[in-house]
Amino acid sequence: MQRYFIDQNADENQRFFITDSNDIHHIVTVMRHQEGHHIIVNFKDQNVYQCEIIDIGNDAIELSLVKKIEVQTELPQEITICSGLIKADKYEWLLQKATELGASHFIATHMDRSVVKLTENKVQKKLQRWEKIIKEAAEQSYRLSIPTIDYVSNLKALYDNIEQYDYVLIAYEDAAKSGETSMLKRVISQMDNQDRVLVIFGPEGGLTEAEIQLFNHVAYQVGLGPRILRAETAPLYVLSAVSYQKELMG
Amino acid sequence: MQRYFIDQNADENQRFFITDSNDIHHIVTVMRHQEGHHIIVNFKDQNVYQCEIIDIGNDAIELSLVKKIEVQTELPQEITICSGLIKADKYEWLLQKATELGASHFIATHMDRSVVKLTENKVQKKLQRWEKIIKEAAEQSYRLSIPTIDYVSNLKALYDNIEQYDYVLIAYEDAAKSGETSMLKRVISQMDNQDRVLVIFGPEGGLTEAEIQLFNHVAYQVGLGPRILRAETAPLYVLSAVSYQKELMG
Repeated sequence: MQRYFIDQNADENQRFFITDSNDIHHIVTVMRHQEGHHIIVNFKDQNVYQCEIIDIGNDAIELSLVKKIEVQTELPQEITICSGLIKADKYEWLLQKATELGASHFIATHMDRSVVKLTENKVQKKLQRWEKIIKEAAEQSYRLSIPTIDYVSNLKALYDNIEQYDYVLIAYEDAAKSGETSMLKRVISQMDNQDRVLVIFGPEGGLTEAEIQLFNHVAYQVGLGPRILRAETAPLYVLSAVSYQKELMG
Repeated sequence: MQRYFIDQNADENQRFFITDSNDIHHIVTVMRHQEGHHIIVNFKDQNVYQCEIIDIGNDAIELSLVKKIEVQTELPQEITICSGLIKADKYEWLLQKATELGASHFIATHMDRSVVKLTENKVQKKLQRWEKIIKEAAEQSYRLSIPTIDYVSNLKALYDNIEQYDYVLIAYEDAAKSGETSMLKRVISQMDNQDRVLVIFGPEGGLTEAEIQLFNHVAYQVGLGPRILRAETAPLYVLSAVSYQKELMG
């Protein structure tokens, strides 16, 4: 069942309102809910509640909280996917699928081999579009929180703030070509719950030597198997690997 | 580097010809190769050779074999991805990404909740289009063989030939909702090299109870983590998991 986000903490004694027009459209027109129906809402504090629709207005849907739902659909680690700018449609697919697969944050940045460029005045509009895609994917896949997305003009700016991460991984083509097969597994095995992990992926043309060297002393260079994965596929491999190792038992 | 397939066994004493018009276009117009240049060719027997371009004609490019390249880019298990028919663009995206991630075979089939239908006269044309997408993805990702794709009209036909598989897995939504977290890992750990594995995924609406029950005595029902994955995302999780478990060391 589709879930909706409300950017406030849950409170069983309070009424809440859904005011996002896309959500209202989905509730009223797509799902055809009516007063008395129940929907599931994620709150800012990651609490999830079954809610009853009290009133449907044009600009707001009023809800009361009925029952708390216990669920953990977030990955144990906070994974940030940093991608060099790639073609627009491929990046949008990536954002949707990486959100389904549990990414916590996205950073888009210009890299040396990016064929796509983003001028300052277009950044805000792009971020809004990307946020909408992420929000919709998060709701559909039962995420407890909506991943954030930022644009950073270049990798140096990212490097200057690198200490906020517990692990930094660089996924690059040459690791596959040279047969590197153990680093990813080793690093994921070491990760603790709530570790903040940054994973850096190049654009269609790959990362340059200089870009890899920039993170030389802080990042692990990881191979993702022997096949060459496209820029928009590689992050999905890493997220699936983390889930498989950390969420599945046995 | 882009690779090309020749549907014959390698022979260092023989000259070979590339006759596929898409490949010729790629070699001559996109990559601008000339006589004397080298390209990499995959042969039917999974041998890979560096080849020299001897002659460029309109309908054929003549090659001689220069040097054998040792490489293993195929998954240790032969994975068949069976999908209920989903929307065309999503399925094409899935075929491309699942090929990058190592799938050996694809089966498309109509399932109860498929909103997409494929009439008999359209099947051949669709298969041709899908084969083209798969071939291009296989070449770009350095696969040693090109995955095949078939269309089967319904699941019962698939069930009647089920003994050809060493493992059958069904990935379904309710496993996520009910918290099933151990079956996938357990089964993948048991798999031997060259095992033939069928993984069945529902369409956008999911598999029905009846469809799951059909395979009750032959298939493992597997959860793919706590998040709901779309029909075109779930196969990528499974393929990544197999690669991570079986190809990465540590």
